[in-house]
Amino acid sequence: MVTPPAPAFPPADRDAVYRAIHGRRDVRRGFLPTPMPDDLLLRILSAAHHAPSVGFMQPWRFLLIRDWQTRAAVHHLFADATEKAAAAYSGEQRDRYAGLKLEGILEAPQNLCIVFDPATERGHGLGRQTVPETALYSVICAIQNLWLAARAEGIGVGWASILEPDRLRDVLAIPPHAFPVAYLCLGFVESFAGEPDLERAGWQARTPLRNVLALDRYDRDWLPENPGI
Amino acid sequence: MVTPPAPAFPPADRDAVYRAIHGRRDVRRGFLPTPMPDDLLLRILSAAHHAPSVGFMQPWRFLLIRDWQTRAAVHHLFADATEKAAAAYSGEQRDRYAGLKLEGILEAPQNLCIVFDPATERGHGLGRQTVPETALYSVICAIQNLWLAARAEGIGVGWASILEPDRLRDVLAIPPHAFPVAYLCLGFVESFAGEPDLERAGWQARTPLRNVLALDRYDRDWLPENPGI
Repeated sequence: MVTPPAPAFPPADRDAVYRAIHGRRDVRRGFLPTPMPDDLLLRILSAAHHAPSVGFMQPWRFLLIRDWQTRAAVHHLFADATEKAAAAYSGEQRDRYAGLKLEGILEAPQNLCIVFDPATERGHGLGRQTVPETALYSVICAIQNLWLAARAEGIGVGWASILEPDRLRDVLAIPPHAFPVAYLCLGFVESFAGEPDLERAGWQARTPLRNVLALDRYDRDWLPENPGI
Repeated sequence: MVTPPAPAFPPADRDAVYRAIHGRRDVRRGFLPTPMPDDLLLRILSAAHHAPSVGFMQPWRFLLIRDWQTRAAVHHLFADATEKAAAAYSGEQRDRYAGLKLEGILEAPQNLCIVFDPATERGHGLGRQTVPETALYSVICAIQNLWLAARAEGIGVGWASILEPDRLRDVLAIPPHAFPVAYLCLGFVESFAGEPDLERAGWQARTPLRNVLALDRYDRDWLPENPGI
């Protein structure tokens, strides 16, 4: 007797999941000043909290920042970091870098710092004996869950990735043993762009999927029976 | 004039996204022998490929493993790693560890190694000047996208996290500069469990969301206006 497989979602539901995945954007402009209600925030934070975690250790901490002074202090860190980063480019690329809008720290009424606390005893070490970084990976899974839930809720999320962790620790009173993994801006937005900002701005085009596929060995291309990739 | 916000998904579609998030499981048992068709594999890989990446660098490589000999070699690595890991526990916890089923490498007709290639010039360094690990974070976002798309497709995914990266490189011909981030087992499954395996097995219970929330500073609890968390 053949065991029937667990069913897929109905087509409309499956498509909704793909729509969140393909329509998610890293949003840096067009945040609206209306604050997000608590229940909406809790829904997307609960989505993050249901991420996979190695040994079920759940090493994430969610630090919501609504206070304007605190956001202004973080914005100051961002300005410093972006000035340093700009020095790495020259000529046309430098102009293009200068023209990119890379954060919405003050425009978005909510900022969210997602922190990795490796000190927790939870999980009893399971699954991370060989590669301790898998604990950190769990935190990134939580971020991606939040990002997709937010898209379904019509909430824009932007990741400010160049903040200096030690200075962020100072501003947010994060203890030395914990690591601020992501600093996100979130809120209602005017719109979601059809394409990633960096693609529209001519910074970098998307690579075709077939360029990143291999079969059985890393050095052996996979050419699946599908011409459309 | 007030700008109207971009709309949320219709309620049924939003609920589908949450159903994928909350119903996703780390699956280690109950894989069925039926292979996944290429078009289904490509849909979930395309979902992974649409993850956010710092500077749009897309540093992930997807190595699909169907070959039985190769899976058998990886399974051998897993057996070695789990023997070492078991030595870290004693007494009742050791028995419990021994009773956990932690991989489906041979049962699942498809394995997938997700590799981080930091050597790519793509992205021109944007966004990762301060914290170079953000490039690796992009790869984890891709994994979580794939996991959720798979759930919507009725495909189980299990992460075998204790494999030794250098030995995995040898088996899969991964060059020294690239890093195997995740080794996943995927396929049709008998069913998706209602709760995580580790919770059901008594290894660790889920922590309440309120335990991981803070407001404005890391050391200040956030008690949102919602009693249900």
